[in-house]
Amino acid sequence: VRFAGTHLLVDVLNGTRLDDIDHIEQTFRRCIEVSGATLLHIHLHHFTPNGGVSGVAVLSESHISIHSWPEYGYAALDLFMCGHAKPHLAIEVLREAFEPDEIIVKEILRGQEAATQMKLAA
Amino acid sequence: VRFAGTHLLVDVLNGTRLDDIDHIEQTFRRCIEVSGATLLHIHLHHFTPNGGVSGVAVLSESHISIHSWPEYGYAALDLFMCGHAKPHLAIEVLREAFEPDEIIVKEILRGQEAATQMKLAA
Repeated sequence: VRFAGTHLLVDVLNGTRLDDIDHIEQTFRRCIEVSGATLLHIHLHHFTPNGGVSGVAVLSESHISIHSWPEYGYAALDLFMCGHAKPHLAIEVLREAFEPDEIIVKEILRGQEAATQMKLAA
Repeated sequence: VRFAGTHLLVDVLNGTRLDDIDHIEQTFRRCIEVSGATLLHIHLHHFTPNGGVSGVAVLSESHISIHSWPEYGYAALDLFMCGHAKPHLAIEVLREAFEPDEIIVKEILRGQEAATQMKLAA
């Protein structure tokens, strides 16, 4: 395995519109666009009674997901993209869309550890 | 925010049947069952020519995803579950399903950092 992709784990703190499913879908589409990725399938689910949204977009380059807890202003997002797509460019889109007090981004290079292990095993 | 969920990032090394979309769907359903989670929506995409599969399952408790590179025997999976679901129980299912040389599991407690930050800010 060579390096398989960049996986950003994104936490949105004290954000707004985290119960607005249409807004979240539009935000996903904008994230995909600015990252240079290709959408294959999108699905969002609206929970009651808290208005939380769980959504996923399957991309040619992997996926995006969101799980929101509007009652806490909190959302956990994943932006996982391989190839030439640039998930970092989507962070600014999330900042504009949800106007959070803070965004925490953790970057994980998927497949890198695997490559190291297999090299050692070879 | 209180603690929002357990997110397992799982790397499968030198696994088999990573191009078998029906097998992957059955494996997802088994993972969900043993974890005590509830399936809301499932979608899998088969890539050509390498036979790789990208799949997501939206759960009441968050999501499961897979992206496989059968030509390298590699797959990157995510098991993200909140509430009472137990994603760790699905690791054994993945081991049986893909018979890898190795599985690397990284555990991230989503929302915990957010909770700490907001406490400090309060």
